[in-house]
Amino acid sequence: MNFCSHCSARVSVKVPAGDSLPRYVCDACGTIHYQNPKLVVGCIPQWEERILLCRRAIEPRRGLWTVPAGFMENGETTMAGAARETFEEARARVDMLQLFALYNIPHISQVYVLFRAALRDLDFSAGEESLEVRLFTEEEVPWEEIAFATVRHTLRHYFDDRRRGHFEMHVGTIEPPVPAAPPVPRAP
Amino acid sequence: MNFCSHCSARVSVKVPAGDSLPRYVCDACGTIHYQNPKLVVGCIPQWEERILLCRRAIEPRRGLWTVPAGFMENGETTMAGAARETFEEARARVDMLQLFALYNIPHISQVYVLFRAALRDLDFSAGEESLEVRLFTEEEVPWEEIAFATVRHTLRHYFDDRRRGHFEMHVGTIEPPVPAAPPVPRAP
Repeated sequence: MNFCSHCSARVSVKVPAGDSLPRYVCDACGTIHYQNPKLVVGCIPQWEERILLCRRAIEPRRGLWTVPAGFMENGETTMAGAARETFEEARARVDMLQLFALYNIPHISQVYVLFRAALRDLDFSAGEESLEVRLFTEEEVPWEEIAFATVRHTLRHYFDDRRRGHFEMHVGTIEPPVPAAPPVPRAP
Repeated sequence: MNFCSHCSARVSVKVPAGDSLPRYVCDACGTIHYQNPKLVVGCIPQWEERILLCRRAIEPRRGLWTVPAGFMENGETTMAGAARETFEEARARVDMLQLFALYNIPHISQVYVLFRAALRDLDFSAGEESLEVRLFTEEEVPWEEIAFATVRHTLRHYFDDRRRGHFEMHVGTIEPPVPAAPPVPRAP
């Protein structure tokens, strides 16, 4: 952020009076431009023993599998946002059953809110952001080709809970990926 | 929003290619300025049979009672944000016990995430945004002086669940307040 979106003057980073954190503050009109975490909403659409996954047509992680999810929009509920994303990515109509997971991802300032959902029917197909949309049993899930750690965690919990016959609410925090170890220097 | 925070040129409202909703888009550099719902994080701090409430020193609803809660900051988890707000508003140290409620408030594009929390000790006092901080049993709660509908709902659920001996996760949507009926014209 370089300029004030209200009056177009330069902004500076400073701690406003009565605040405790640095913010972008307009040098001219004084508007404080807060920046806050974003909500990602989505669901695990289920049909009998199987769940619906989408193969991503866009970066990041193009070609890998995920559950339908995306940024929540102003004016909608988390449930409506999850259903909208499911229609956009998988052209599928779902009914939310239960809040299933809330994951904090503080290093990218995101919070994931994921529901269990019931597919209304088998009328689905790849939306613009998907290469392919498919139903998977637990055994069929391509565990090595899941796009995000949050999604892998969520699916593990989902199948564990289902085996136990009781779905719980899962709260967790995703840490930044550990960078790969530097290559070991080879003897000359 | 009038100007691009990246380059200071004018922004227009238009639907970007591949998108389905109108956004603020810069006429010069093309940056799309997304606006998304905000997360409010907080908790119900408990101490034996009582819960901690704060009387607001700031608008809106100055003088009315609420649980410690506020806008989540970038780089923190929902739990850390709830603990930070509790310290800021009530100078109290808490440990999060359980995710207790998620409320959608679509007409103001907010999502409330509230935890049950344990007060570590009785060392608390009014922070800058509070006039007063007190512990209340269910019978003592000033139900007619609760600041927000979300908080009233949450406290009702909290005490109902406690009576039943089992805390559940509550998901709900808060609708806009119904405007007061216009005054009935008086006969001349």
